[in-house]
Amino acid sequence: MAETNQQILFAARPEEWPAPETFEIVETPMPEQGEGEILVRNVALSLDPYMRGRMRERKSYTAGFELGKVLQGGVVGEVIATKNNQRFAVGDYVSGLLGWEQFSVASGKGMLKIDLDAAPLSAHLGVLGMPGFTAYVGLLDIGQPKAGETVYVSAAASTVGSAVGQIAKLKGCHVVGSAGSDEKVEACLKRFGYDACFNYKNADKLHRAIREVCPEGIDVYFENVGGAMFDAALLNINVGARIPLCGMISQYNLAAPEGLKNLGNLLVNRARLQGFIIFDHYHRWADFVTDMSGWLADGSVTYAEHITDGLENAPAAFVDMLRGAHLGKSVVRIGPDRA
Amino acid sequence: MAETNQQILFAARPEEWPAPETFEIVETPMPEQGEGEILVRNVALSLDPYMRGRMRERKSYTAGFELGKVLQGGVVGEVIATKNNQRFAVGDYVSGLLGWEQFSVASGKGMLKIDLDAAPLSAHLGVLGMPGFTAYVGLLDIGQPKAGETVYVSAAASTVGSAVGQIAKLKGCHVVGSAGSDEKVEACLKRFGYDACFNYKNADKLHRAIREVCPEGIDVYFENVGGAMFDAALLNINVGARIPLCGMISQYNLAAPEGLKNLGNLLVNRARLQGFIIFDHYHRWADFVTDMSGWLADGSVTYAEHITDGLENAPAAFVDMLRGAHLGKSVVRIGPDRA
Repeated sequence: MAETNQQILFAARPEEWPAPETFEIVETPMPEQGEGEILVRNVALSLDPYMRGRMRERKSYTAGFELGKVLQGGVVGEVIATKNNQRFAVGDYVSGLLGWEQFSVASGKGMLKIDLDAAPLSAHLGVLGMPGFTAYVGLLDIGQPKAGETVYVSAAASTVGSAVGQIAKLKGCHVVGSAGSDEKVEACLKRFGYDACFNYKNADKLHRAIREVCPEGIDVYFENVGGAMFDAALLNINVGARIPLCGMISQYNLAAPEGLKNLGNLLVNRARLQGFIIFDHYHRWADFVTDMSGWLADGSVTYAEHITDGLENAPAAFVDMLRGAHLGKSVVRIGPDRA
Repeated sequence: MAETNQQILFAARPEEWPAPETFEIVETPMPEQGEGEILVRNVALSLDPYMRGRMRERKSYTAGFELGKVLQGGVVGEVIATKNNQRFAVGDYVSGLLGWEQFSVASGKGMLKIDLDAAPLSAHLGVLGMPGFTAYVGLLDIGQPKAGETVYVSAAASTVGSAVGQIAKLKGCHVVGSAGSDEKVEACLKRFGYDACFNYKNADKLHRAIREVCPEGIDVYFENVGGAMFDAALLNINVGARIPLCGMISQYNLAAPEGLKNLGNLLVNRARLQGFIIFDHYHRWADFVTDMSGWLADGSVTYAEHITDGLENAPAAFVDMLRGAHLGKSVVRIGPDRA
């Protein structure tokens, strides 16, 4: 066992984009296990857009990161010591919100045991984890698509977006999307089964580019990005459209958000814009795991991953993820699957 | 009977505020009744914010006004001749969408017979008409307030707003509002039963002024105005807030809408923004008439009216209404209740 614990601290609050000074890498003693706690060797760390919100001063839906403390994120790891024998044994694999660090102690609250047979370890951070669950609840429960309707997905190749697109296809929808590189567009068309997809960076007028792939208008817009894309999508919604508001990644690194001008279209079209936070929906977790494991097993859902090796490379990978440089789920590999 | 019919035509499309050249007053021959049609002597014309949308070129939720044709609006009047004896008799009073004119012919489709015992004739254009029905459906069906929750109403003294406020009080809510003059604020507090109300024109920071009257945050925001007020209200919404999107009067006379910056708060607070159009909800009309007639009869709902005499004064009154110069329902008196 290592004698020290590499950790990454939240060193300074970014005004716009996170930068090297946002992070500090430290070596600390191994954490001490209290009564009822488990010691986890972290194997993989999830990098997700919502984490940028936790770097803000003002309250978001999760507590902000504390300056000088270890950053947090979704982690999968192996239990290497347990003082909670009733729930966890040494050798169990778990997922949950832990630190950006090699070893974490956890009370077990909020930790889930994961099934390595259902998918590889890192997939439990993506398609079988919080992002996949977000896609499942956001599309099915909030968006309520009906067969034959048009579902438009921004950030269509992202972990959440690619799952939304594939689930919508399984439900019989016409599924179209946009993404930020030709490579991502190709992945949407060839791997994720989108009926149409375009590179928004090459679009002259966004609302026209959307209209081209959605000639009959949008019934469900799965909103991941905010800003100009949101405004352009609003110009294409149909009567009775539903917009699950999942994220606004285009806005997270701006000092002030862009203004949305086309909200009046929600009125004209009797449309519904519904914010949601996945933590409110854990009553659907078991349904999700059953469905998604089945879809992965029979090949009707697939996923992409971008793996960065080494915890020390997490800060740069986090910024790359926010800039959209990764195709698929951004994962930082902290250690080997098995010690 | 008059030998001619005074009418007001839609003469020119306004870019921003409607102006005298928007309208043209003409004298035309009495309209001819076709088979199955009724001839209505129009008594009162309703002036409503949504009419401004019908002056735009781009499609809104109602068909645009046609240039050179008679403007339309909610009218109450007396049937003075009928070729539809099965449904309408001479002497019946009716309401419906008719022209800005002294006499209209109508097929009877969409015309409602009104009960003069329930309220005075002009009230059928307001609290017992489309605006009151909008308040009823928007608050109860879309906003779904629960006793003890805080309901915030912009344009709180308006026809719709004052009905929303009073219905919310009847449902046990804490009801607060904002309005654009001290006279309106006083009406909200003394006549419409608001728990608190402020003049937004005197507010230094809108979001702080709202916070002062809603110290526990907003559970239902009945959105009538859009723009800066909407953005400020978003900074005060609670988790699970509902926002019936009824109108955006502050935006109707701008060449381009203002940008909304705080939509991210919908996400953080898992809030719902729901556009609605009253025409979709006529299955609730009978419930509304029963409830509202009862509330008027027992004095638990009251209303204000601003009456302008003479059809020829409708254009100026329409602009005054859009500018918020009227307290209560804006009605143009075209003729006497009884001929």
